[in-house]
Formats: sequence, C-alpha cells, structure tokens
Amino acid sequence: MNKLQISQRAQKIIASPIRKFLPLMLEAEKRGIKIYKINVGDPDLLPPPEFYREIKRHLAGNLGYAPSPGIASHVAAWQEYYSQMGVNLQPGNIIPTQGGAEAILLAMQAVADQGDEVVVFEPLYVSYRSFAAMAGIKLVPVTLSIANNFSLPSVSVLKNKITSRTKAIVIVNPDNPTGKLWSKKELDQIIQVAKKHNLYIISDETYREIRFDGKKFSCLLTRKDAAENIILCDSVSKRFSMPGARIGCVASFNKEIMSSVLKFAQARLSAGTLEQLALVPLIKNSRSYTRKVQKEYLRRRNAVAAGLKNIPGAVFRPAQGAFYQAVKLPVKSAEDFVKFMISEFQYKGATVMVTPMKDFYLTLGLGENEVRIAYVLNVKDLSAAMDVLHRGLIAYKTSPLKRPFKGTT
Amino acid sequence: MNKLQISQRAQKIIASPIRKFLPLMLEAEKRGIKIYKINVGDPDLLPPPEFYREIKRHLAGNLGYAPSPGIASHVAAWQEYYSQMGVNLQPGNIIPTQGGAEAILLAMQAVADQGDEVVVFEPLYVSYRSFAAMAGIKLVPVTLSIANNFSLPSVSVLKNKITSRTKAIVIVNPDNPTGKLWSKKELDQIIQVAKKHNLYIISDETYREIRFDGKKFSCLLTRKDAAENIILCDSVSKRFSMPGARIGCVASFNKEIMSSVLKFAQARLSAGTLEQLALVPLIKNSRSYTRKVQKEYLRRRNAVAAGLKNIPGAVFRPAQGAFYQAVKLPVKSAEDFVKFMISEFQYKGATVMVTPMKDFYLTLGLGENEVRIAYVLNVKDLSAAMDVLHRGLIAYKTSPLKRPFKGTT
Repeated sequence: MNKLQISQRAQKIIASPIRKFLPLMLEAEKRGIKIYKINVGDPDLLPPPEFYREIKRHLAGNLGYAPSPGIASHVAAWQEYYSQMGVNLQPGNIIPTQGGAEAILLAMQAVADQGDEVVVFEPLYVSYRSFAAMAGIKLVPVTLSIANNFSLPSVSVLKNKITSRTKAIVIVNPDNPTGKLWSKKELDQIIQVAKKHNLYIISDETYREIRFDGKKFSCLLTRKDAAENIILCDSVSKRFSMPGARIGCVASFNKEIMSSVLKFAQARLSAGTLEQLALVPLIKNSRSYTRKVQKEYLRRRNAVAAGLKNIPGAVFRPAQGAFYQAVKLPVKSAEDFVKFMISEFQYKGATVMVTPMKDFYLTLGLGENEVRIAYVLNVKDLSAAMDVLHRGLIAYKTSPLKRPFKGTT
Repeated sequence: MNKLQISQRAQKIIASPIRKFLPLMLEAEKRGIKIYKINVGDPDLLPPPEFYREIKRHLAGNLGYAPSPGIASHVAAWQEYYSQMGVNLQPGNIIPTQGGAEAILLAMQAVADQGDEVVVFEPLYVSYRSFAAMAGIKLVPVTLSIANNFSLPSVSVLKNKITSRTKAIVIVNPDNPTGKLWSKKELDQIIQVAKKHNLYIISDETYREIRFDGKKFSCLLTRKDAAENIILCDSVSKRFSMPGARIGCVASFNKEIMSSVLKFAQARLSAGTLEQLALVPLIKNSRSYTRKVQKEYLRRRNAVAAGLKNIPGAVFRPAQGAFYQAVKLPVKSAEDFVKFMISEFQYKGATVMVTPMKDFYLTLGLGENEVRIAYVLNVKDLSAAMDVLHRGLIAYKTSPLKRPFKGTT
C-alpha cells in the first residue's frame, strides 16, 4: 500500500440515516429549539418497574461473563415465553444476544458467505444493509410500495430474485419501517419458495406484541413444516421499552444453525450479565406490560394518522404493527426537507425530526420523498409534532430558497 | 442448493478451546466434583463497589439506546483516563463498545476485507481467530516460543510475513495467553515495520494495569510518531473485574478509522446504557482499585509459579503481566490430559480445569502440550489447584489406559 487505507467494507457501509443527523440536532438544541424526535425507534415509555427491581437484587458479588449459550435461568425464561405461543424449544435452540441487532448479524453470518445473496423486502430496516456490508453479503431487494400497502406483489417477483447464490429470505414482522403485518397468505408463499429452494428464512419478530386492529399473528417458529428453515431473531428492546438493555436472542430448531451461532457467540463471549438475570421474571410473564404498551401505541398510531390526514399530499396507510408510520410527503427530497426542518425551521420554538427513507431502499431513486415516523412520543406531543410537520411543509414549499418541491398532483 | 447449508465461515470457525469443555464440566459437577476453574479469564475478584452504587442511581426513568458514539459523560471519562497516561484524545477519537471483543471485531473490519491479511503473534487469544473467520480475514502468524520467553525472534521474521494483502499487525500487551509484556525495543521494531509498509497496528491493552516486576509500560497511543497507524482496543472487563458488564472501547487518532468504526457501531446501535453511565466515576478514578488488583495478581502469579516449579517437566517463565501463565506440560496432548482431568480424575473430590493451548496457535502441530492457567482463584485455591494438577499428571502418566505420555527428557 502507498498509504494507510480503510477497508472496502468500511467505505461501502452507509451512515445510519436515522442517526446521522445527530450533530445537526445537537446544534438545533443549542439554539434553544425543542425537537419532537420521532426519528429513532427509541421508546419514551418507561420499562416495566420489575426490571429495575430485579437489577437491584443482583447488585452484589461477582460480575463475571455469562456463559456464551446464555445464563440458564434466562434461557429458561425465553423457553417459557415461546411456549406461551405454542413453540416448544430446548435450551440449545435459544442463544441470548447483545440486542436484536446482534441476533441479525449472527444469523446472517451463519447462513451466508462473502458474495452470497440474501433476499430482502425494501424499504428495509437499515441495519440489515450495514451488517450485509460488514459481512460481504449481497442483499437482493423485492420492492414493496406504499401505494400497494407494502403487499407482496406476486410470488413470481420473489422467485425471480432467487439465484444459485441465494441463501436466505429476511422477513421483519411486524415490519420496521413500514408498519406492515405479513399476512398468512404471504408467509405461506414465502415459506413455499424457501422450502423449494432450500433457503433459510430469517424472521425478525422484534415488534411481535405491537399489533393493531386484531390482526392474527403467529410466531414463524410455529410453522413445523419449515422448522429447519426458520431462524428467529428477537429482542426485548421494543416490547419492554428498554433498548438500552441490549438483550435479544436467536432461536431456531435447526441444530447446525444453533451450533454455528454458538461458535460466533463464544468469540464475543457473552451478552450482559445483569440484564440477562434481571429479565427472567419479565420474559416469563410479560403480557400485562405488553398489553398496555400495545394499547398506547394504537392510540398513537391513530393520532399520527389523524395528523397526517390534514396534510395535503401526504400518502400513507395506517400502520398495522410496530410503532412506525411510513409516509410519502409532497416534497422532492425528504432528506433536504429534514435538513430544512432541523437547520432552518421552527414553529413557536419547536421543530420535528423524522427519518428520510431513501436509505431504507436498496434500489437507487426509490423512497426519495418518503419518511418514517416513530411513535415514540405521547399522543399530545405526536399531534403537536404532526402540526409542526404540516407547518414545516408549508414553509418549505414557500421558502425563498425555492427548494425542490413536488406538487400534489 | 440441494439442501440447507450453513456458511463456510460457520464451518471454519472453531469452538472456543476455553469454553468448549463446559458440558464436561457440568457433568463433573453433577457427579459432585469440585473443579478449580482456571481455564476462563473470568476474575473471581469483586468489582469496585462504586460500580453497583452507581448502577443503583440510574435505576429509574427511561432505558433508551445510548448514542452510537457513546454517552457523552462516559466518553469524557475515557478521555480523562487516557489523559492520565499522557494521551489526549477528543470525544470523536473514542467509541465505547460491547466489551473489548467487539472493539477487536470492529477494528479488524475497519482495516481488512475478505482475503486481506493481518499479522498476529502466536500463541494468540482465540477470539482473534473467530473474528477473522467471521470477517474472512487471513491471519498470518509469527510464532513466539515459550522457551524463548515469547520474545520477537528478529525483525526480519516479521518483515517476511508482510505481503501486498497485509493490512495490520496485532499486538496484545500485556498478552493473553502468554503473560508477555512487549519491550520498548520490540514495539519500536514493530512500529517501524508498520510505518514502512503502511500497516495499522491494533493494540489490545485490555490488561494494561496488570503488570509485575516494575516493568515500564506505555499505552501505544503515546507513540505520536505512529499516531495514524495505531488503533487501540480496550476493555473494563479485566482491570475492574467485571467482564459481565460488556464495556470496552476503540480509540484512535486516525479520523478515517474512527468514522468507519462509528458506522459499524451505528448498525448495532449502542453499548449498554446502564453500564456506560455507572462506569463514569470509576474510569475517571481507577487507580486505587487497579493498584490493589495488580498486587493480588502478583501474589497469584508467584503462587502459580511456585506450584509449577514442583512439577517435573513443566516448562514455563513466570508471566510479566495479565493474569495468565502459559506452561508446557510433560504430556503429548494437553487436550487429552484436560479431558482426563475433567472426566476421570479427582483428588479428594476435586479436579482442575486449565485451557489446552493448541488452538491458540494457527500453525498446526504447535502448542500440543501447552496449557494456559488463568489466575482467577485466590492464592490458597491456586496452590491447591497446582497440587491437584501435579497429582493429575502423575495419575495420567500411570493410567491403565496407557495414555500418550511424553517423558521429561
């Protein structure tokens, strides 16, 4: 080498579209602006109080590594949790991870090598892109569209993406960033394709409990007909409002997969000891908390939808799950609009921060005018934020800088 | 594919030689055997009490993601810690990680791609092998020998390993598993080679404070002549006896490296929130604890050395740092001996568990009769463990199964 160089993967990986505006946000706050932060999926809700009570119980003695396969009582708690939804796993079928993020990274690395392909649906939670870049895996997108409520267009579209290098299909259900719930029919179709082509299905069910409108939902591990194909990625971050705990898990009936994930897990030693211990009672008995949370997010979903309905040219379908609303705005570049909102705009000392969705698409040129809204504020603040967003759009449109504006045709 | 297959990287990665005997250990414990566990570098010492006190202070309110670049006060604590050793870093030069393990993985991925080479010294802490397998990086070993006190043989041996694909050299200082402290002369030579060939140096200083015999030591970041080359990997796990906290950091003056590490870090969102917060006072003011710990490990180093001196045919040089002793045993296969100790042997209801070192070598056939001892028991138990080890060796040698035995010539 003629000079020090960073790796290709470091050059390829994109900065998080969710987190890259942090410096601009800090500047706005220095100027005294209140920011309605609905860009990061970081719940404002308090975690269940028993979590802190349990942590307190363990603040004594050693703070050693947890075993790489997880602390036995913690793994047993996950077993009980899954058994409540009819999925009977053995301890070896579950490995705790450092958040759902690590679960995804380990699952991808267990199934795919450099140059291999993994089929994903776009728009896509961006960490998948980053992990693929780190692992040298090529993501092949099936495009879903906001106009079509993010439905699977037809199974042939999916089949056409399968090549000899394809190793897996990723499903996020309920989905981030679209708020989509996958229908039984869609899942049947995807499972059929996976079985026929011997592909894994990485099923990311982080938002499992957050669903609206009484839609039916089954953990994909209930699908005994595809037990060897399915790798579940899970997390306590969203359902228990505690992303700071960094605890998730990988679960699969496939022994080879679990043995691979364990070897990867051994390399990084363990997930947090205190958090694993403190989560035991909560994971076993979570419904009273998740029911409350689900109701709260439903109210918020409705408040956001009501606010967006007032905005001429905003295109969206109310989310069916998770706590995100994808929406097409009447602008040309959502990224430029977001920069305007954070750098130039204020209404009564406040502005709003949403996430531009273009980086959630692998296909260049898609999603330029879409944003993701995370319902991580209370109903009152969300309604106020929708009002600020509306006023911001008007100001942006009439801005003397003559910003690119796409009319509502 | 004709059937579901796991990835090549999953097939290549080795099970942890430190952790793979866990099932046999659990069986022995079920039989009522007491095991002196000196295989895992999991300190028995209590963490500083202020850590638990601090955690308690933060058990209220939200438990959100930490920012990917780290919680500001936590990063400031690391700044202060490094400034105490004459290294003045800006916040952007430090990113907290999920333990030292993640720091290593992110540093390796920032500098090397699939097929690239990283020069390491063997015997080598095994997680490096696993991370290389996961990232598709080829490790090229320079062999150090126990007989030569693990000294760098000559700089030409190192130079001969450099190819057009070489991106970095890894130094672990003080070293795991050898207990070696790198001398200024050795470091000078390595830095010279790195600068000449535009290589990064990944300097893993997890055991920085645990050094014996008054040997001089400087954090490699003090080397202003190679500021752009050096990537520091650090951890609180060992110096504060809290590997279960999973907190470490990457630090470098190289802005491109830090920007790459940040993008990787964004993908997995954050390191633990409670632990980052609770570590602030401790990292700022760590010396009273680390001084005590250093003295305790010195006593243990001496106890292990005294015990090993009684064992005919045991070859070792007392460790200079960290809390490991590498030792060559008078057996043919240390792995077979370890299995014997855990499955068949007991002395007064006790046995001892050490780590076979062969998997710490990349070169096949090396280290077959070496083991690593971790000083993670008190002096009394360590002395008892050395006695059990001695008795185990005698029993193994005279076992009716006529196990492979290599005499002490």
